[in-house]
Amino acid sequence: MGITVVSTIAELKDLSAKLLAAATGPAPANFRGGTLGLVPTMGALHPGHAELAKAAVAQNDVVVASVFVNPLQFGDPVDLERYPRTTEADLAVLEAAGVDIMFAPSDEEMYPGGEPAVRITAGKLGELYEGASRPGHFDGALTVVAKLLHAGRPDTGLEPADAAGRQPYRAYFGQKDAQQLALVRRMVADLNFPVDIVAVPTVRDGDGLALSSRNRFLSAGERDAALVLSRALRLLRRRADAHEPLDIPSAEELVHMTPGVELDYLEVVDPATLAVRAENCQDTPFTGQALALIAARVGPVRLIDNVTLG
Amino acid sequence: MGITVVSTIAELKDLSAKLLAAATGPAPANFRGGTLGLVPTMGALHPGHAELAKAAVAQNDVVVASVFVNPLQFGDPVDLERYPRTTEADLAVLEAAGVDIMFAPSDEEMYPGGEPAVRITAGKLGELYEGASRPGHFDGALTVVAKLLHAGRPDTGLEPADAAGRQPYRAYFGQKDAQQLALVRRMVADLNFPVDIVAVPTVRDGDGLALSSRNRFLSAGERDAALVLSRALRLLRRRADAHEPLDIPSAEELVHMTPGVELDYLEVVDPATLAVRAENCQDTPFTGQALALIAARVGPVRLIDNVTLG
Repeated sequence: MGITVVSTIAELKDLSAKLLAAATGPAPANFRGGTLGLVPTMGALHPGHAELAKAAVAQNDVVVASVFVNPLQFGDPVDLERYPRTTEADLAVLEAAGVDIMFAPSDEEMYPGGEPAVRITAGKLGELYEGASRPGHFDGALTVVAKLLHAGRPDTGLEPADAAGRQPYRAYFGQKDAQQLALVRRMVADLNFPVDIVAVPTVRDGDGLALSSRNRFLSAGERDAALVLSRALRLLRRRADAHEPLDIPSAEELVHMTPGVELDYLEVVDPATLAVRAENCQDTPFTGQALALIAARVGPVRLIDNVTLG
Repeated sequence: MGITVVSTIAELKDLSAKLLAAATGPAPANFRGGTLGLVPTMGALHPGHAELAKAAVAQNDVVVASVFVNPLQFGDPVDLERYPRTTEADLAVLEAAGVDIMFAPSDEEMYPGGEPAVRITAGKLGELYEGASRPGHFDGALTVVAKLLHAGRPDTGLEPADAAGRQPYRAYFGQKDAQQLALVRRMVADLNFPVDIVAVPTVRDGDGLALSSRNRFLSAGERDAALVLSRALRLLRRRADAHEPLDIPSAEELVHMTPGVELDYLEVVDPATLAVRAENCQDTPFTGQALALIAARVGPVRLIDNVTLG
C-alpha cells in the first residue's frame, strides 16, 4: 500500500475510515470493524520511534503516525526553534515500519485562531521532575496529546471494545518519557477518553545511551559523559535485583564525579503515582516495584532516562 | 419503552449501543447507524431542563440524561451539601420528556480513587464573571462535562458524521448558563471532542424570572426582588432593538435601587469570546450582536441571567 501523507484532521478521519473498511471487509455485509493504532511523535525520528511504529503495526489493522512539533509544550522559543525537523527522513522511517498514514498538520490546523483557550492541566503531577524545570511543559504536551487522540480516532470502522473493556483504538508512547507516559495514562483514565495506552520499552545504543532526538546535539566527548546517566540507573537496578538497599547518594555521586554533567534529579518513585518512594530505598533491602528517574544537563542539552526496578 | 436508570459507564455504553441498534435496524444487514443526544444535568430538574430533554428527544434516535451533582465544581462544601437532590421527581420529568436512559452515577463511579489528577482548565475565560467569584468552578464543571461527553458516547451504532462535519452525537446545554455554554463550546473545539453542542433557550416564568434550581430557596419577597435581573436585561434589549446607546449604568441603577438585591456584575460581552464589548455600548447607537450578562445575590442565593442583544 505504501504510506499516505495527510495534513488535515478531516482528511485523516476520512482516509483512516476508508483503510479500516478496506482492511476488514466491505460495509455493511461482511463488516466486522477493525483496530487502529496511533503513534504521536514530534518527528526527528530515531530507531526508538521506529519501535513504537512497529509495535503499532504488529497489533493493528491500520496505523497512523503523527508528526507535529507542538509549540505549546516549549517554554523556551529557542528550544522550539532548534528542535530538529527532518520530515523526509521521518517519512522513510514510518514507511519502512509499515505505517499507513503520516499525519503532518500545520500549526494553524492544530490551533486554528491561535493558542487554545481551554486546555488540559497535569496538576501537581506536572510540577514534579521534568515539570519543575519546564513550567507548563506537561500542560502543553497533554493538550496536544488530547487533540491528537481525538483527531486520530476514526468515526466509523472500529470494532467494539471487548468484554474486558479493551479498546480497538490504541496509542503508543515510549517508556523513555516515563513521566509523560504516566500523565497520559492518568489523563485517559481521569477524563474517560476511549483509547488504550500502550507503552513501548526504551531503545538504547549498544553502550547504553537511551535514544533521543536531542542526542544529535552532543559532541563525541559529551556523548561519552552522557553515558553516566544509564550507568547510574544500572547501578540502582543491580542493587534492586539483589534486594540490597539502593543507596541513591552513591549513584548520585557517580554522576557528580563526571565532568560536564550537571545532575538535575535522580529519584526513585512509584510507577503510577510518581510519588517519591521513601521506604526500602536507603537502609533496608529493596522490595516491590519502582521507577528510577534521572535528568541531567550535558553540554547543550538536557537528557532524561529511567529504568524500572523490581 | 419507558426510561431505564443506569449507574455505571459500562452499563450506559452497553445499553445506549443496544437501543441505537434497536432504533435503526439490526446489524449488520440493515444497519445505518443512528444519532444520540446527551443532556448533562445536576438534577433538581425544572421545566428548563425539560426543554433540553425535549429538544434532544426531537432530534435524536436515543437520548441519555445524566444526573450527577459534581463535587468538583463547588468551592463551598455548604453549597454542595444543600444543593437540592430530587431523584424520583427528576426521573418523572425525564420520562415524561421521552428520555430513554437516566445515567445517575455515584461519586466513586465518576471519580474512582478520589479527585482526578489531570483535569480540564478553562484558562483566563474561566476567571471572568462567574469565575471571578467562584475560583475553580469552571475547571471543575468542564472536567465533569469532558468525562460525561466521553462516557455518554456509545462505541458503536452511531451514524458517520455528515459531509459538513455535523456529528451524530449531540450534547444539550441551556443558554441560561451562558458562560458555561461558551466554555463547553471552546473545550469541544480546542480539544477536538467528537460531539456537537446544542444550545437551548432559557425558560422563564410568566413574570420573566429565569428558571433555576436555586429559585426554590427564595422567599416570596426575595422572588419579587429577583425580577429586577430580567427587567434590567429587558431594558438593555429594548435599547439594542431600537439601536439606541445601551446606557449600562442606568440598568445597573435599576438593580441598585432594589432592596435585598446585591449586584455582582452587569456586562455586555462578545457571545463567543466573552470579551467585554467596549464599543457601541455607551455613547453610540448599538449595532451588531452581543450578550448581556447579569449576576446578583438575592437573599440566600446567587442568581444569574442573560439575554442576547441584536
